[in-house]
Amino acid sequence: MKTRLTSVLLLLAASPVVSGEAPASLPFPSDYREWVFLSSGLGMTYGPLASGTPRFDNVFVTPAAYRSFLMSGRWPDKTMFVLEVRAAESKGSINKDGHFQSDVAGIEAEVKDRGQWTFYSFGAGAKEGQPFPRTQSCYACHAANGAVDNTFVQFYPTLLPVAKANGTLKKQ
Amino acid sequence: MKTRLTSVLLLLAASPVVSGEAPASLPFPSDYREWVFLSSGLGMTYGPLASGTPRFDNVFVTPAAYRSFLMSGRWPDKTMFVLEVRAAESKGSINKDGHFQSDVAGIEAEVKDRGQWTFYSFGAGAKEGQPFPRTQSCYACHAANGAVDNTFVQFYPTLLPVAKANGTLKKQ
Repeated sequence: MKTRLTSVLLLLAASPVVSGEAPASLPFPSDYREWVFLSSGLGMTYGPLASGTPRFDNVFVTPAAYRSFLMSGRWPDKTMFVLEVRAAESKGSINKDGHFQSDVAGIEAEVKDRGQWTFYSFGAGAKEGQPFPRTQSCYACHAANGAVDNTFVQFYPTLLPVAKANGTLKKQ
Repeated sequence: MKTRLTSVLLLLAASPVVSGEAPASLPFPSDYREWVFLSSGLGMTYGPLASGTPRFDNVFVTPAAYRSFLMSGRWPDKTMFVLEVRAAESKGSINKDGHFQSDVAGIEAEVKDRGQWTFYSFGAGAKEGQPFPRTQSCYACHAANGAVDNTFVQFYPTLLPVAKANGTLKKQ
């Protein structure tokens, strides 16, 4: 673990887009399933952990950040998202078609700290998440395509109208 | 509205499975998106509001009931579920395949009151939900197929292991 973190920090130090302090590891937010759910997709292609088999992605955000966004259309500092990827099953119990969710396939997080967003990856059962190097494509993709402040509000149906009403959608 | 409720109550009175008082209307729980998310499916066939076009179904439960279930594998009295059905879109923003969620297509609720579960339907924008007659298939289907106490815990991946650990799964 120490070796991996050191490698990540070296990458961060070598990246031209790093600003401020390099982020440390992130404690696993064990209560994230009690945060506010933003949306779920199945087989979306821009996301991480894509594979030939469609998977569900559930997105949760810290409750205080959610309520702040409802008031302003903006994310406050210390906002934290969790992206939970789950396997999809089709035939099970009384379900005959379509898909329902089963085991966790991956967990990632995105945290806003002093105005800067950092992504973290949690290995299976990990108590700490490690920051993705800023050279990873998630940073450039969210910066370019996030409808509001690095985040994919365009896919969160309860928040998109709030951003429109507050004029916080990125200008295209 | 009064006429519709009267019709429902007449149906309830004629049903052989009614016990206790007939349920009244249910105020719309406007904060249900801040409750605990249980799971989401796409195009599942046993659910209500099924159609040729696959839809997402999101299930939320009252936070106090969720925490009680985590401790016991059982639903306390006053537990309330919301089933939110949403349209699915595929091409939009940077998404190229799979499906993401858009507009609400329907909202239903299930409430446990003095040991008895009642289902409610909310029309678009309705401030009150009306109880489904007990002759509707949702009652028989949940009673026969719900893994725990009339509810589809078999499709809620964080709760299924809790029910197994507490021995509250229905015996098959």
